[in-house]
Amino acid sequence: MTDALSPAPQSAAPPAVATAGDPTAGEVLTAHLTAQAVAFLRALPTVRGEPGGRPGEPDAQGGDLLRAVRRVGGALHTFAAAVEPGWAQELRDELRWLLNMLTQEPSYDRRLARLVAALDSLTRTAAPDRLPAQRGDEPSSPSTGMLAGHPGAAKARALLERQLTVARARIHTSSLQELRSARLHALADRMTLLTGEVPLAAPAAAAAREVLLPQAAAALGALARAAEALPLLRAGAAYNGDARHRLHAEAPLPDADAALGTDDAPWLRVRILAKRARYALEVCEPLLGGQASGTAARLDSLGRVLDRHQEAADAAATAAAAARTPRITPATGYVLGVVHADQRLEVEAARYSFGLQWPELLNSDWPDWPVR
Amino acid sequence: MTDALSPAPQSAAPPAVATAGDPTAGEVLTAHLTAQAVAFLRALPTVRGEPGGRPGEPDAQGGDLLRAVRRVGGALHTFAAAVEPGWAQELRDELRWLLNMLTQEPSYDRRLARLVAALDSLTRTAAPDRLPAQRGDEPSSPSTGMLAGHPGAAKARALLERQLTVARARIHTSSLQELRSARLHALADRMTLLTGEVPLAAPAAAAAREVLLPQAAAALGALARAAEALPLLRAGAAYNGDARHRLHAEAPLPDADAALGTDDAPWLRVRILAKRARYALEVCEPLLGGQASGTAARLDSLGRVLDRHQEAADAAATAAAAARTPRITPATGYVLGVVHADQRLEVEAARYSFGLQWPELLNSDWPDWPVR
Repeated sequence: MTDALSPAPQSAAPPAVATAGDPTAGEVLTAHLTAQAVAFLRALPTVRGEPGGRPGEPDAQGGDLLRAVRRVGGALHTFAAAVEPGWAQELRDELRWLLNMLTQEPSYDRRLARLVAALDSLTRTAAPDRLPAQRGDEPSSPSTGMLAGHPGAAKARALLERQLTVARARIHTSSLQELRSARLHALADRMTLLTGEVPLAAPAAAAAREVLLPQAAAALGALARAAEALPLLRAGAAYNGDARHRLHAEAPLPDADAALGTDDAPWLRVRILAKRARYALEVCEPLLGGQASGTAARLDSLGRVLDRHQEAADAAATAAAAARTPRITPATGYVLGVVHADQRLEVEAARYSFGLQWPELLNSDWPDWPVR
Repeated sequence: MTDALSPAPQSAAPPAVATAGDPTAGEVLTAHLTAQAVAFLRALPTVRGEPGGRPGEPDAQGGDLLRAVRRVGGALHTFAAAVEPGWAQELRDELRWLLNMLTQEPSYDRRLARLVAALDSLTRTAAPDRLPAQRGDEPSSPSTGMLAGHPGAAKARALLERQLTVARARIHTSSLQELRSARLHALADRMTLLTGEVPLAAPAAAAAREVLLPQAAAALGALARAAEALPLLRAGAAYNGDARHRLHAEAPLPDADAALGTDDAPWLRVRILAKRARYALEVCEPLLGGQASGTAARLDSLGRVLDRHQEAADAAATAAAAARTPRITPATGYVLGVVHADQRLEVEAARYSFGLQWPELLNSDWPDWPVR
């Protein structure tokens, strides 16, 4: 582990121009981007519901499409110096538009599943405990939730299901329209061109090690700086009440929703930077040859924690919004209050996990961490 | 530390009958009990509101009275073999009656203070952060609660204040009556007799080390057995959702209140055993001469954690009960739900602290831990 922290041979100064057998930055980037563009174009017809679509579940194809969109967008951002700037910026804007559109439906699905699971577990009455055994020392004992038998639970569940289903249906309709829009056709055309040729900038002619590894390092550095600026000491002290009592706000804020949003923002930003760093390592994989595989695995793990953070924050906001529905019963309001607090606790728990895992990433096998 | 774990000289078999200069069990017990009886009788008049009461705050005198009641009751339980059984049992019953009566008003006060503090902190809007600096890395930044500006907060606060004030006033009235009852007069007479002579049993004639230290060890052993039976592995994993999603119940229970009560019961039992062990060490202090002062300090610390556990559990139950008040608004119900979950989290947090502190107690300087 400590050996891996000292500069590895390939990060020592390489020749400025690629020599025979040493790929150029353009070659490595082109291989990655064209592969992602091909994956994009294979998944698109099914997602659009076109007859020429390949067999397979639309959801799975949607996942493939999202993966390609994120990877192309991430690579164009991280390795911006090696690609033609105007083209890259336009493509990134369009990919961001598509990403925003495609992530909304799955986000509503996950939010509903999370809230229903929380309600079910909070209202469970002494069913056999099926949680993983490593979590408890009495895995087979019955367990009960703190809302067991509460009269407001069924109404709260029905309310959340109704509101999220309506919101999801609205998004679904507008997504279907956008998936057939001229804007998406134009984006598909751009991706088709990308399977043939990537518009490169001058630095792409240099050796890939010279150009891409420092840029991947910069992506990891941006992540590290943002993560180190998080209140990790506080998040690392279990049960410090951060996410409920001590939201961070730059200035007095009008209400709790705004304060929660401000409190969550730096964590959501770190989530994006972690994904971007992970995609940068993927691009550099041919150069690294598994040398940063520990870093990649830890970035994946941190990414899951940060996904959980975002999903819990979204679910909490949904519960709080549902509690503002006119004419609900006090019992429904009470149950939604419990669920809101419960999900903010999941936010706290995710921050705590992040605080535990973060030092492991900084001690992983990436050869040259920019901050330490 | 490890040296202290091996049997210390004075716990090696002493002579069965006290020799000159070595106090008998009866002498040590009598000194302790008469001192406590004197403290009891000094505090009683003020608590009863009698003209002969000593100057000083009634609350402080109430605290003195409670301290004496707990210590006499604990000593009579732990060192039962050394005192006359019928007399001890009757006195313990009367002390328990007085203890139950005296603890209710302060319990309501603490519950209200805790709930109001939780509501204030949950609804705070970007006031300067006054929490202790060691808890956070940005102590001077403004902070906001997750209920900041919520329309239900003021009503929930007023409801809790009203309900707890009414309950407290009811208790106060009945306590005043009981404090002037014949039953309390009779108890005061018993305590007056105790300042003169303690009715001892035959074993009290033996050396104190021979009789009292094994009985104190038994009290520590009872605590250790009960604590080791707690789900400490689960409590020790931060944010495991125990106190909200996975209440322990021997059999299916009709509702959440019953399940919460069953889940809390073993922790409340450990709290009583920890207090009893602490009082046993106090009785043995003349024999130990500071030799178990580390154990005593850690018992005090665990006692504070278990007090917090009980207070949070009580406050949570109060919030849940208030949410069942007819004709409250949905917003009030929502806020009470957040507060209920927040206090159950404090219960989880106290269990987590207990799990961290418990091994330190077992490694403390008490010479002979019965379980390990």
